[in-house]
Amino acid sequence: MNSRRIGVLGGGQLGRMLIESAHRLNVSVVCLDSDPATPAKQLLGPPVAGTIDCGAFSNAADIRKFVSQSKIDVLTVEIEHVDTHVLDELEAEGKVEVHPAPSTIRVIQDKFAQKEHLTKHGVPTSKYAPVPSVESLQSLAKEWGLPLMLKSKRWAYDGRGNYAVHSEEDIAKAYETLNPKADPEALYAEAWCPFERELAVMVVRDRQGHVVAYPTVETVHTRNICHVVVAPAQIDGLLAARAQEVAKMAVASLSGAGIFGVEMFYLASGEILLNEIAPRPHNSGHYTQDACNTSQFENHVRVLAGLPIGSTDLKVPYAAMLNILGHVPMGDLQRTLASAHASVTVPGSTVHLYGKPGCRADRKMGHINLVAQTFPELQSRMAQLLAADLGVSVDDARNVILPSALRQGAPKVGIIMGSDSDLPVMRAAAHILRDFDVPFELTIVSAHRTPLRMVEYAQQAAARGIQVIIAGAGGAAHLPGMVAAVTPLPVIGVPVALKVLDGQDSLYSIVQMPRGVPVATVAINNSTNAGLLAVRMLGAQSRYYREKMAEYLKRQEAEVLGKVDRLAQVGWEEYKA
Amino acid sequence: MNSRRIGVLGGGQLGRMLIESAHRLNVSVVCLDSDPATPAKQLLGPPVAGTIDCGAFSNAADIRKFVSQSKIDVLTVEIEHVDTHVLDELEAEGKVEVHPAPSTIRVIQDKFAQKEHLTKHGVPTSKYAPVPSVESLQSLAKEWGLPLMLKSKRWAYDGRGNYAVHSEEDIAKAYETLNPKADPEALYAEAWCPFERELAVMVVRDRQGHVVAYPTVETVHTRNICHVVVAPAQIDGLLAARAQEVAKMAVASLSGAGIFGVEMFYLASGEILLNEIAPRPHNSGHYTQDACNTSQFENHVRVLAGLPIGSTDLKVPYAAMLNILGHVPMGDLQRTLASAHASVTVPGSTVHLYGKPGCRADRKMGHINLVAQTFPELQSRMAQLLAADLGVSVDDARNVILPSALRQGAPKVGIIMGSDSDLPVMRAAAHILRDFDVPFELTIVSAHRTPLRMVEYAQQAAARGIQVIIAGAGGAAHLPGMVAAVTPLPVIGVPVALKVLDGQDSLYSIVQMPRGVPVATVAINNSTNAGLLAVRMLGAQSRYYREKMAEYLKRQEAEVLGKVDRLAQVGWEEYKA
Repeated sequence: MNSRRIGVLGGGQLGRMLIESAHRLNVSVVCLDSDPATPAKQLLGPPVAGTIDCGAFSNAADIRKFVSQSKIDVLTVEIEHVDTHVLDELEAEGKVEVHPAPSTIRVIQDKFAQKEHLTKHGVPTSKYAPVPSVESLQSLAKEWGLPLMLKSKRWAYDGRGNYAVHSEEDIAKAYETLNPKADPEALYAEAWCPFERELAVMVVRDRQGHVVAYPTVETVHTRNICHVVVAPAQIDGLLAARAQEVAKMAVASLSGAGIFGVEMFYLASGEILLNEIAPRPHNSGHYTQDACNTSQFENHVRVLAGLPIGSTDLKVPYAAMLNILGHVPMGDLQRTLASAHASVTVPGSTVHLYGKPGCRADRKMGHINLVAQTFPELQSRMAQLLAADLGVSVDDARNVILPSALRQGAPKVGIIMGSDSDLPVMRAAAHILRDFDVPFELTIVSAHRTPLRMVEYAQQAAARGIQVIIAGAGGAAHLPGMVAAVTPLPVIGVPVALKVLDGQDSLYSIVQMPRGVPVATVAINNSTNAGLLAVRMLGAQSRYYREKMAEYLKRQEAEVLGKVDRLAQVGWEEYKA
Repeated sequence: MNSRRIGVLGGGQLGRMLIESAHRLNVSVVCLDSDPATPAKQLLGPPVAGTIDCGAFSNAADIRKFVSQSKIDVLTVEIEHVDTHVLDELEAEGKVEVHPAPSTIRVIQDKFAQKEHLTKHGVPTSKYAPVPSVESLQSLAKEWGLPLMLKSKRWAYDGRGNYAVHSEEDIAKAYETLNPKADPEALYAEAWCPFERELAVMVVRDRQGHVVAYPTVETVHTRNICHVVVAPAQIDGLLAARAQEVAKMAVASLSGAGIFGVEMFYLASGEILLNEIAPRPHNSGHYTQDACNTSQFENHVRVLAGLPIGSTDLKVPYAAMLNILGHVPMGDLQRTLASAHASVTVPGSTVHLYGKPGCRADRKMGHINLVAQTFPELQSRMAQLLAADLGVSVDDARNVILPSALRQGAPKVGIIMGSDSDLPVMRAAAHILRDFDVPFELTIVSAHRTPLRMVEYAQQAAARGIQVIIAGAGGAAHLPGMVAAVTPLPVIGVPVALKVLDGQDSLYSIVQMPRGVPVATVAINNSTNAGLLAVRMLGAQSRYYREKMAEYLKRQEAEVLGKVDRLAQVGWEEYKA
């Protein structure tokens, strides 16, 4: 597809998966690593005559030799801890293009510089301050209050280089631990960030500076290491869109092409704060390999090779990822691979092992991508993987271990009613949805008393992630029809009977919609049927719900057949309904 | 995942993609090919010390050396033209396991033997007969009539070794062309097979003999080479299921584990006849890489490594594949890659290039997998790829070139009505569905006059591929409710007004369903709204239809706003509606 040769500094699993994508595009890749048989190199044939692939990606001379002897056109990184000054020089000398820009990698290497850069560009982050001495940390603790986070500016990852300062007694120990040489430039402090959820967005940036975001995902960390990713994050769609905007704003402020992983905190206050950026493929984006139109790795190769950015859309409704981390504390390989072994019988899971020869505690040995058509399927499949991973029963994994990111799906059905007096009628719809494992929300939206709220609800429903609306109303029952006039979603109308007219007024108000705007009307007061109809609508394109509905019909039939038997036994004189 | 080493005879693109899957499972693979830099070997690091990978996969001595020196545990093929006798010997000597069984490969190498085998096992195929001489062919032509197919028993692929005999004059030439040495064992004849569609199913068979089928696809050949694959085949779901049964029956009759490609003909008579089997990954299964839970390549690796068969379900609603064939007549590489270059801007497409150094006419250089959420998206995306592939405009590709397999989607909505007298009312629903590009069917199903047909329709609708049913009826309007009682699909009811009662009877009969069985009822005679509601239901889970519905609402609004302007200009006295 392209004759430019890409050189990768580092030969770990990210390089390996980059090479997997490059092969499919017939883009030539070489990687530099001091180990002759890294995960990445296992996927490459013998080095092309004259090229080299052994050397330290942190050593300037090795990088220079790599670029010239291997005839690299574009240089990139799969780890940010590289010597950026030699990259600057090589670019200045016209020897190679570097993506992302060395200046970008440099800013990201230093978390304090990253904070300053983001703040300058208006990207929301948590409060931070330099702490050149123990004393400055002590006075900051007084000013901000405790707890706060003490962090190393550089060489920090997976929680290493971070210290949570909870009490005044911690201060000296924290400073000493992270900065034994008392370098006044080594540390900085961050305000404590009591987040509700950790969100992440992969963003790809092309050579012209266009940025495109992948979906917002939720990440779950174990021992400060990414453990589970849920895609899309089971949050309000408008919030997810806001996280994508923050991530794009951040990446747009940087230079050079490539894929970026952006990690964010979502706070109870509703704020989204950027935590940190990775200038490379990222663990929170591995799900894209099996769940998106174009994987993060292919998009990285594409922009390096000068090809257009590929579609970042999910191609499946739900996805998740589980990291295969070296078993703690022993790094025992068989225990480590338990989830991989379990995954072969879990539909929708794909194992990606990295071919690492040795295992140790918490080492990233591989990951499992999971796809599903419905949220309950995603939950139960992940429970099976987690059960094997953690050595617990599937029931425990499902009921106890399942992370909050997977506990509750974002609502797919919205039940609304004109008044709380409709709740006794409408509750039956909620019961049905709960019985069928359909995530839903229930609230009051009155056409006549909250007309603006009604319009806003209808306008935002689709963007928020709602797929079907059930609206109940009585009398001059305008709610279902007015909502249907604003939203493109299917609206199910439940005519609620008032004291007079037996609900005929409600029925006619709801069903007799003009040409152009349909309301799916069910029987008077019959919100059970509204719930069942919503399930059937979801089942139109999902076998899971369709099969559950077929079972429900079978159960109904069996119930009546039971009565047939009882009637035959008891006789019609004695039978009581 | 498994310590057994797999040896592959042949190092082409099938081996390459097998190795891609094996890497992810950390299953060790070596391949034997006389070329040192085949597509497969490009994905493997340098041969492990002491192993060999150069040699002829058709040479017994080379195979023996390969197995012993490379310490192969399981041997498989990526091409069926191998020496099966040495495989038999190696297995008998206990040196290696061979999958599929050498006897299976042998049966498949000889198309006549394959026919005999299938016939013996009750698998439907076209009529065939041996033709040891020109004379026997002449008398067969008299007996069967012409045209008929003359075929080489062995070494035939991509149409090579086939001769269509149309007239008596062809006979001698056909025989001479395919069999210049007049070997009485070389040829056989097949009855002419005037098929409507070419279908294919990948089947995976484990060591215990369990067989699992992938979805039925339709294949489109150009110059006898697979060119386009559409998944799932846009045919009745019951027919697709029948094709899967035929394919599984055929593979169950063979021995050994592995993936098999089964090609079939669908005839106007409704018959499905097996054409031929490939005992290896197959071009008609490449779509599985990006469209199924587990790819054909991974499932082949799995069963060879003794792992369970992975889910063969589609994870996307629609998929297709376009082969990248060397440009005819010149094999010009840039022209050959035109579709690959076009694909980078087509959402949902993934290019798989094979890394072949040279190109020639019709050589398989790669393929493009396409996924889509709706059929119209699949059509328009494939049109873009075909336009580039064939050097025509996208409009021409869409309107002229698009193969029949992609012309018409299998119906997603079924419109049924109690009587042809309902058609004037119900036609509006059909207009809406056509305007929104929703594939649909329309027929008469009467609750009272064809009650058994009604039950059968409702019972089969979901299995046939229908997702939403629109049912219109008048008076004692039982059709919508009775259909809803049998199917788990959502049923939209259109009350049709008869001469008396203004449709109130129809409305009540349809909307007042008992708890447990909902009908989505629209206004009396308003089948426009039924069509729109069906589109909204599909749009619940598909952005394409949801966005089209949002545009429709915008257009309706604009239409009324136009009237606002006209009324203001003309004045209320003069205004005519």
